[in-house]
Amino acid sequence: MKILLVSHGSFSKGLSETMTMVLGPQEDLDYLGLYPEKSVDDLKTCVEEKLKEYGDEEVLVFTDLYFGSPFNAVVQLMERYDVYHITGINVPLLMETIVMKNNGKSIEEICDEVIRLASGSVCDVRKQFKELLEGEDSK
Amino acid sequence: MKILLVSHGSFSKGLSETMTMVLGPQEDLDYLGLYPEKSVDDLKTCVEEKLKEYGDEEVLVFTDLYFGSPFNAVVQLMERYDVYHITGINVPLLMETIVMKNNGKSIEEICDEVIRLASGSVCDVRKQFKELLEGEDSK
Repeated sequence: MKILLVSHGSFSKGLSETMTMVLGPQEDLDYLGLYPEKSVDDLKTCVEEKLKEYGDEEVLVFTDLYFGSPFNAVVQLMERYDVYHITGINVPLLMETIVMKNNGKSIEEICDEVIRLASGSVCDVRKQFKELLEGEDSK
Repeated sequence: MKILLVSHGSFSKGLSETMTMVLGPQEDLDYLGLYPEKSVDDLKTCVEEKLKEYGDEEVLVFTDLYFGSPFNAVVQLMERYDVYHITGINVPLLMETIVMKNNGKSIEEICDEVIRLASGSVCDVRKQFKELLEGEDSK
């Protein structure tokens, strides 16, 4: 199973580098970015080249933004390529994905679990700590 | 109101660059990264310098990962600095934050809205499209 990050600009590059820093090098993790000097069609061509390169491997594509240009490029390719696609990726969800993949979970299980974990992956720390302290005070 | 992104490695840099590409330059958006050659205390010092520089402005810090080192550095500073802190940031939620900020929403409203939007910001595109197509077929 291959994981491909596709985003506007360097978000996908930064996310990939951070993941390497936290979990160590991941040979199945790759990224592409849409930069101002490139057209959406250029990006689509680059994504398609990656998909061809992966051959029969299952592919999970993560894009940055619903209805953004990278998202649209991947959606257009989904008509011809049987890839999985989740949008709105963040660090904890990509980390969970890699850990589950390395533990042998199926790509369907991983997609379901990422969506299940999504809301809990974003957290208001200040509010949470306040609630904890108020809980302590009322004891 | 200032927005500061703090992460392992270049995730925060990439996220900031992508946001500039999508929304244009944002003078209140800043970032810091923890790199292998730096200690967590170095990062904490850099975050504290930024907080001092911001003076009386309200600050919303976004970190990459619950209980990661950047998260912990910010949490330690929250004992002495009155900052808002949300962890698990992604592109759509940062975009919403900047749009809400530029529309004059309060920092409390923004934090509540980010948490409310979190689960919907991550989406399984393949599943959603399948459901749409099945809905069309059953008509």
